[in-house]
This record gives sequence, C-alpha cells and structure tokens, in this order.
Amino acid sequence: MYRSYTCGELRSSDINKEVVLAGWVQRSRKMGGMTFIDLRDRYGITQLVFNEEVNPELCEQANKLGREYVIQIKGVVNERFNKNEHIPTGDIEIIVSELKVLNAASTPPFTIEDNTDGGEDIRMKYRYLDLRRNAVRSNLELRHKMTIEVRKFLDDLGFLEVETPILIGSTPEGARDFVVPSRMNPGQFYALPQSPQLFKQLLMVSGFDRYFQIAKCFRDEDLRADRQPEFTQIDCEMSFVDQEDVLSTFEGMAKHLFKSIRNIEITEQFPRMAWADAMKYYGSDKPDIRFDMRFVELMDIMKGHGFPVFDSAEYIGGICAEGAASYTRKQLDALTEFVKRPQIGAKGMVYARIEADGTVKSSVDKFYTQEVLQQMKEAFGAKPGDLILILSGDDAMKTRKQLNELRLEMGSQLGLRDKNTFACLWIVDFPLFEWDEETGRFMAMHHPFTSPKPEDIELLDTDPGKVRANAYDMVINGVEVGGGSIRIHDSELQNKMFTLLGFTPERAQEQFGFLMDAFKFGAPPHGGLAYGLDRWVSLFAGLDSIRDCIAFPKNNSGRDVMTDAPAPLDPAQLEELNLTIGLDA
Amino acid sequence: MYRSYTCGELRSSDINKEVVLAGWVQRSRKMGGMTFIDLRDRYGITQLVFNEEVNPELCEQANKLGREYVIQIKGVVNERFNKNEHIPTGDIEIIVSELKVLNAASTPPFTIEDNTDGGEDIRMKYRYLDLRRNAVRSNLELRHKMTIEVRKFLDDLGFLEVETPILIGSTPEGARDFVVPSRMNPGQFYALPQSPQLFKQLLMVSGFDRYFQIAKCFRDEDLRADRQPEFTQIDCEMSFVDQEDVLSTFEGMAKHLFKSIRNIEITEQFPRMAWADAMKYYGSDKPDIRFDMRFVELMDIMKGHGFPVFDSAEYIGGICAEGAASYTRKQLDALTEFVKRPQIGAKGMVYARIEADGTVKSSVDKFYTQEVLQQMKEAFGAKPGDLILILSGDDAMKTRKQLNELRLEMGSQLGLRDKNTFACLWIVDFPLFEWDEETGRFMAMHHPFTSPKPEDIELLDTDPGKVRANAYDMVINGVEVGGGSIRIHDSELQNKMFTLLGFTPERAQEQFGFLMDAFKFGAPPHGGLAYGLDRWVSLFAGLDSIRDCIAFPKNNSGRDVMTDAPAPLDPAQLEELNLTIGLDA
Repeated sequence: MYRSYTCGELRSSDINKEVVLAGWVQRSRKMGGMTFIDLRDRYGITQLVFNEEVNPELCEQANKLGREYVIQIKGVVNERFNKNEHIPTGDIEIIVSELKVLNAASTPPFTIEDNTDGGEDIRMKYRYLDLRRNAVRSNLELRHKMTIEVRKFLDDLGFLEVETPILIGSTPEGARDFVVPSRMNPGQFYALPQSPQLFKQLLMVSGFDRYFQIAKCFRDEDLRADRQPEFTQIDCEMSFVDQEDVLSTFEGMAKHLFKSIRNIEITEQFPRMAWADAMKYYGSDKPDIRFDMRFVELMDIMKGHGFPVFDSAEYIGGICAEGAASYTRKQLDALTEFVKRPQIGAKGMVYARIEADGTVKSSVDKFYTQEVLQQMKEAFGAKPGDLILILSGDDAMKTRKQLNELRLEMGSQLGLRDKNTFACLWIVDFPLFEWDEETGRFMAMHHPFTSPKPEDIELLDTDPGKVRANAYDMVINGVEVGGGSIRIHDSELQNKMFTLLGFTPERAQEQFGFLMDAFKFGAPPHGGLAYGLDRWVSLFAGLDSIRDCIAFPKNNSGRDVMTDAPAPLDPAQLEELNLTIGLDA
Repeated sequence: MYRSYTCGELRSSDINKEVVLAGWVQRSRKMGGMTFIDLRDRYGITQLVFNEEVNPELCEQANKLGREYVIQIKGVVNERFNKNEHIPTGDIEIIVSELKVLNAASTPPFTIEDNTDGGEDIRMKYRYLDLRRNAVRSNLELRHKMTIEVRKFLDDLGFLEVETPILIGSTPEGARDFVVPSRMNPGQFYALPQSPQLFKQLLMVSGFDRYFQIAKCFRDEDLRADRQPEFTQIDCEMSFVDQEDVLSTFEGMAKHLFKSIRNIEITEQFPRMAWADAMKYYGSDKPDIRFDMRFVELMDIMKGHGFPVFDSAEYIGGICAEGAASYTRKQLDALTEFVKRPQIGAKGMVYARIEADGTVKSSVDKFYTQEVLQQMKEAFGAKPGDLILILSGDDAMKTRKQLNELRLEMGSQLGLRDKNTFACLWIVDFPLFEWDEETGRFMAMHHPFTSPKPEDIELLDTDPGKVRANAYDMVINGVEVGGGSIRIHDSELQNKMFTLLGFTPERAQEQFGFLMDAFKFGAPPHGGLAYGLDRWVSLFAGLDSIRDCIAFPKNNSGRDVMTDAPAPLDPAQLEELNLTIGLDA
C-alpha cells in the first residue's frame, strides 16, 4: 500500500502521528520560506508543509512539483496555525520528511476545479481529467449510492435481480434497434435491447414473481440533450398484482430514495392525475407541479367578440402568473418571441394585466368590454398584480403544448422551479392507442403488451381510441422518471391487440411467437415499471443533462470523442462478418 | 393483490385463518371423494383440499384443472392429518371455498420437476418453462444473492460501482470483437467490450481510487461448454496498491462469499503457487488441489535403460494414485485409451502397481530391474497398494498437459473431487510474455497493460521470455475464477511494451492513444482483478456448465433457440445502415 491514510482522513486527534499519504498536487504556494501543497485524492485534500530552513533540498524538490503530479509523502501530522473550516482536514497539516514523485504530469488542458475554465468539448475529449473534478465525481458517487439503495429496497421486498441478454432478436416495433452481425450465423443479426420487456414478461411466466434489473438499454435515435444511445433502466416486474400494487410498491421505492439519498421524508401519497386532465390543465403528460398555474379555457368567454384570431380559434386558453403584472413591455415582447420560436410555433400571445383597482388592461382591449375581461379575470381567480397570458390556435392539443412551454418558462422566470423542491405525481389512465396520421392506423401508446382497463375492453371493437390503459408514469418536477403498465396475460387478448395494431397473424407470430407460445402455458397476471436511472440521478444531483451523471457519455452524434469511437473496421473483420459497406444497387 | 399469502408462507400458527392464494397447479390427485392439489409458486407448495361431499360443484371444477393452470383460491387453513415433513408448509392444507382460473395452460412439453423428462434441446426452446423448475430457479436465486453480497462487500470497502459504456471502440488485440454498425456515422462501427479494462484504468487516472462493476462482457469466439458470447465479470480496480494489497482485498471477498453464501468459514491464507511450479507439478495453470497427486519427474531414473519410448523422451513423469493398485487390466486399458484420445494426444501410458510385499510390478518390467523400479517407487513415496501412472513425450509442456488430464481423471475416479469441498489457490509469477509460434513474436500472456515485476524490468531488453509479471489468477477446484494484475502506469514503460509486442508507434497510438495520453497527466500506480461471476455461481451451485446459472443462455452456435435470434434483418434496416450482405469481390 502506498499510503497509511487517505487525503480526507486525518483530524486533530491524529496530531503527532507519522503518516504516509499519496495523491495529486492540487496547488502549491510559497510563503516566506515555506512551501504549502494541497494534496488531493477522492476523499479530500490535505495540506503538506515543506520548510526551506529545515530541509532546503526537500523544499527545492517540492517547489518543482507541477499541478496534477502524483506524489507519495511521509511526514508527521501537525496542528495548523491558520485552520481552514471549509474542509474536514482543515485543522491539520503534514510536516513532510520524505517526498517521492510517483508520476509526473503534463499541464492539464483545463483546471481541475469545480469552476473549471474548460469548455464542454475539451472536457469530453479529456473526460478522465474532467472526472477528477469534485462536481463530476460526486454525481457518480451519488449514482453508486442510488443503485445500492435501489437494490437494498427491492431485495428486502423479495425481488430477484436477473440478468437478461444483451444480444437478442430485433423487433421493428418502437424505436430503431442497434444491430450486431453474427459471424457464426452469416447474414443474421442480433439486436441490442431497447428494454428487457419481453424477457421480464417471460420471467413472470416462469414464476419468478418479482424481478428487477438495473439494465443497460439501447436506442438508435437522433440524440438530444437528455438522450444517450445507451442508458440505464431500473427495470421491474411483479406477478399476481393489479395497478394499485405496482403504484404503491414503486411509490415506496421513490420515497425510500428521497429519504436515503436526499434526506427528504415524504409521508403523504403522491397525487394522481388522469392523462386527460394533465393534457387539459398542463398541456403535457409530464406536468411540473412545483407550481400551480393551471390552464384556464376561455372559448366560452373570449370567442365571438370580434377579435378575428380568437373567433377563428378551436382553442383559447391561458395561464395566470401571480404578481407578474409588473412585467414590462420588453419582457412581454420577449415572451411573445419565445412562443413564436419555431420549436414552439405559436402565432402570437395575448396578455392582460390586473391593475391595482381590479380592472383588466389587455393587449386586445379594443375587442373586449371590461365586463368580458372581468369574466375572464374571474375564470382565472386572478388578483390585482397578476398577469394573464393567453394563446389560441386551430388545434387544441397543439395549442396546449405551446401553452405548456409558456407555463414552464413563466415558472422559471418567477423562480417557481427550485431544484431542491420536489413535486411527485402519478399520471394514470393513459389512452391505450394513439392515432398515427402518417400510417393511418392506431399505434400502442406504451407498447403492444399493455393491458386495457377491464371496463374498457368492450370498446376495443367499437371505439378503440377511447380505450384507456392500465398504464402509469411517475413524473417529478416535469421529468418522466419512470413508467409502466399492467400487461396482457391472456394470449387471445394479446392477439386481438396485435390485430388492432395492424399486425398480420404471420407477422405477429414471427415477431412475438415465443411470447404468445409462453402465454399458452399458464401466464400469471403481471405488471411492472421501469425507472430511468440516469434521470433520477440527474434530478437528485440537480443536473440539466443526464450526460453529467454518466462516466463516459457520447456526444450528440453518438460519438465518444475521448476514444474516438465509432471508427472504421479492419477490412479483414468485415470480411469475416460477410459484410460490405455501401450498397451495390 | 391476487393473494394474501404466498404458497411457501403458511404454518400451523395460521390454522383457521381465511386466506387467498394464487399459483400454478403442480399436481392433483383424487382420493376417496377428496381432491388434493399442490399449488406452487416461487416460494413453495401448499396443499389445497376439495371435498366432493361438501361442495360437489367446486370439486368438479378442481378435477378439471390441468398441470400448470394458474389459479386463485380462497379458503381456510386447516391442520393436515398426514403431515409432510419434507416441505415447510407440510403441517397445513387449505380447505378451499372459492376457485378462479386465472389462466388455463396447455400441457407442457416436459414435466416441471427437479428430475424432468425433458432433454437439453427442448428445455432450451421452452426456457421459460425450464425456469419454473426449482433446480434452475435456485441457481438464479443464488446468483442474485451473490451479487448482493459482492456489492455489500465492495461498497463497505469504499469501492464505487461505475457503469462503463457498452458501445466502445474496437481493439483487434485479444479475442474477436462483436461490432455494431453506426447509422449516424456511416461506414463506422462500435464494438462491444471484451472487458472494461481501458475504462477502469482511465477511472484510476481520474482518481476514482476504488472502482468496481458487475459488467457484461462480450467475445465473439467459437463456443465451448463453459463459454458464452456474453458473460458477466465482477470487474475491480484500485489505486496506490501493490500486488499484495490486491490479493488480500480479493481473497477477503472470496472468503466473504464462502461465508455468506455457503456458510464455509476459511480462516487461513489461500496457498500461493508460482506459475512455473503449477506447470511443473500439475501441468496446468489452474490446478485442482482438492487432491495432491503431484507430478514426479523420472528422467534421471527411467531414461537410458533400454526402453526405447523413454530413452527418446524429453520428458518422463508420472503420478501416484493412492490405493489404486487394485485397478484391473480393463480399467488400465481404459485409462490408456483415455490418454490416447485425440483431445489429449498421448502415445501410450506406463503403469506400475506396488504389491503388498513392496515390490513393483510394471507394464515395462522387461526393461527395468527391480532396483530401478524401487528407486522410482521412492521418488513417488509410494506404498503397497498404490498405482503409478507414467507418461512421456518429446515436448515437456505438452506431456505435462496430458498428464494433467490423466491426474484429473484419476481424481474423479477415486472420488477426490467432491463438489462440496473447495480448495482455493492463487497462481502468481506468470510470465509476462508467451512466444507465439504462428506469428513468430511475443504475445502478452494477460494483456499489454500488465506490469512486469520491478526486479525483472532489466530483462525486457535482454531476455523478454524470462520476465515475470505482477499478475495473478485465483483458482478454485481447478477452475480459474478470476485474475488480474498490477498495471503499467508509466507511459514510457507502456510504450516499450507495445514495441516488444510488435506494435508500430502509429498503431499503438491509433489503438491506445487515449490511454497513453491519459498516462501523461498523472496516472497513479494501480492494479485490479476481474472475477467471472458465471463461474463463481456455477462453482457454488455445483454445476457442470455456466449455462445453468444464466437465465437465457445461447447454445454452442451462439443462438437463442427460444426467441430464434440472431435472424435476418429487414432490408430497409440494412439500407439505413449502409450495409450489404456478402462480398462483391
């Protein structure tokens, strides 16, 4: 062992001990014949002292050490004259008697500090240096702690962690698969799993009763800030349960994580919101309910008064931003620009201030009497000093989504989205299908194994669009942290689903034959849920992107810029796989 | 919830309780107006009772239930008249009042019993039914428990579990990679990791200090009984350590697993054996030391006495099988056939019995005087009743390997390889290189990042074949359960290794440039180890193949016969990937 203590360990009770430490040179400074070095490792920082008078040679050596040199020292623990209250080792320092350079270091391309001078690109290229920063490493320590707690919680409840395969068959449903050519089966391919869905259902057929897995999943999608080609799910499934059992089990897990990781005790039940209400009141299936600011629909009040934009609208709705009547014209113009951005796509925005005397002053005053405007005010329950913002459009769903963006923006501007406040919510009663304009057919909103609500099964034949699913998502602070469903366990109902989803019997058999077969041998009722680990960690760490809680993430082109992967293959490797790049017509 | 208790939970203290159970029909039998059904779930079996006199309709329903039907029942716990001492619920039964069929079941293609009538192939095709068998499921329960204990042990020591990527760059060193075409980077490929080796070393450069991961690894090799294309490693790395630190940490982990999983307390230190001794005395780098039967070399004693086979040999050596002098001619002939099998390749075998009077009776008596045979007997320390078996050949290493096979076979025949006896061992002092006849150059015996022993570094320039590595394997009962090394942390030494291994500087830079770069920014001394999880589980479960401790294994052609993967791709998918199957010259 190269050390007797770590750099985070020594305290005043250790004074006068002879110790050996090893670590990285964080910084050094000379002061009146003394050289002070901050020695860093994962566990902390300890101050080393070299005295020019006592040992000029050693001090000279110390003066030559550069940032990030790896050194080993021997010395005696001494009480510090100027104590540092900001670090746990701040009461002591080491009077060094021996120094050994274990490895020299070139000057790093950015500073290894919480507030580094390195930009995103250079930090990704030298990710191994970026990971030296406390801010990044602590995210991964949190991630480790969360998986320990997840496993503890589930193991205590009798869940078994079972590894399902990474090399599986490809299923064209859902997102695009990554595929792996099989050398031993020329012309054939494995796929990497988008989730262990089919295997966990098979484990229920096998009687495993309670399964979980912290599982790598893969999707070949065009990437966004919060997507990675590989990501990690806490994947769970239970038998002989209904929706209520699954919700209470995984609400329990969420509460356990809040308590064990963030020391937040949540005693009350999480609120539940029907999907239809979430869309109606928040324009989103993952509303951020840290703040209220619900949508109020205004068709009855505002339509038909001569304002052409509203008169031709299929939806008029708004939000009331408490206390924001003081917004300047410039701020309001900026909000209008915000909703008109192509990513949001609104045509414009109407606003109305509630004056101190209760009158309403709006941007469309010439079309509305004060009486109508007062009705509107009442609809919002608005008070003097509040600001009302209204959008309209010819497609209710689209307009609601625009209003959702505006609501979130206002929440941010008014400081209502504190990262250390957490608002948890279940979204339930999802539609089983959504209509796909492009293909002109119904698609599964979750996946084709989701069970309809028993009371809605009759509607499958008459009005499939109205069928609700036994499906649920958990949303925290506007982030979907997980979701799942009760599954179909009856092979006839499953076949009916495939038919409704446009599968021919042959294709259903080809794709999911083994699952259909399995269901014939006694499948128990079952259901489950998958939590996104990356998202949970980001949420608890207060990160804006999941990238910072992943040790070696990919960039937006799916590249690892550190190792420069992917890369062209050796031609011999391609030949062995019986593959050619490019198409020969 | 479909049940108030599991099928393994009720005891005599629950008598008279009204309960709801759910599970699978294991078996049913009729006896004098009564129908008895064994209801099974993961937790156990509970006997259900239906009385024809009390409720003829219900009993009739029960009589119609087939094997593996999924049912739910309500009833009252009753004391059993004929108690079954073999199962924990054997004191009670349930007098059923309500019965609901949750799912019917076709007759399974094999019996769901510990001793099933199903062969390997059909059980793999219906793996989800095979997994219902206690014998298979208990292996996976053991696997779950082992990973819990592994994580507990490592977490307590401050190891952080860090997920490293599955989509990485390809490295032609080592075994063959599985590759993944990148749609977003046409013509380029990711590879699946053969191990997280490079990433864990980078984490040490990052100052993570103690890393572990229970990690999926992939090798595109032709498969054998104990190989799978994907397998699981307990992958570990530590900083500021020497070999002794790594050995003691992971010997500690092995002892923790023996204690927590098998309740075996191992207090003494594991023996350590130099690689050269393992080869010399056991002809294997993973000797099974549950029994002694070390090789004795006989060149000095047996060569040059006129027996042409031995006189022309480069190696003569044998083993002494205690008490096996009673082996018949037929048994000895079978052993000769055994060593002559092409997989082993010996030309023949010489044997010698020690008679009751101490004289030696051998198959080559006409070439040797009793005096020489007595010298041989002394060399083995053989006693009356022992059997000596001797092989010879013109290549010492090859002959030792043949003798290893014979030794293991004799160990099995004499009952010296009990699955519930465990003999642990470290193999140390591996050669750094092995000479590859085919390419005519040195290859890394472990991998190119393995550190030479400091005292052997000088030999790198003069006699590379003699350089020993700071590398180690843990062997239990003849199975290599793990191995590792102290790594090179100095970029100059690493470059020298690459040169010795025949890399041009350009190729070394192309392949491992990011690691070399990383080493320039202050790499700590570090080393680690990887345990094979599948092998540990097999060992503790007493399995012959790792396949039975994997939920969904592949067969010897790398196929999952249950889901029929791999399979041809949709042409559109290939097109999107810019790939063509087959070579266009």
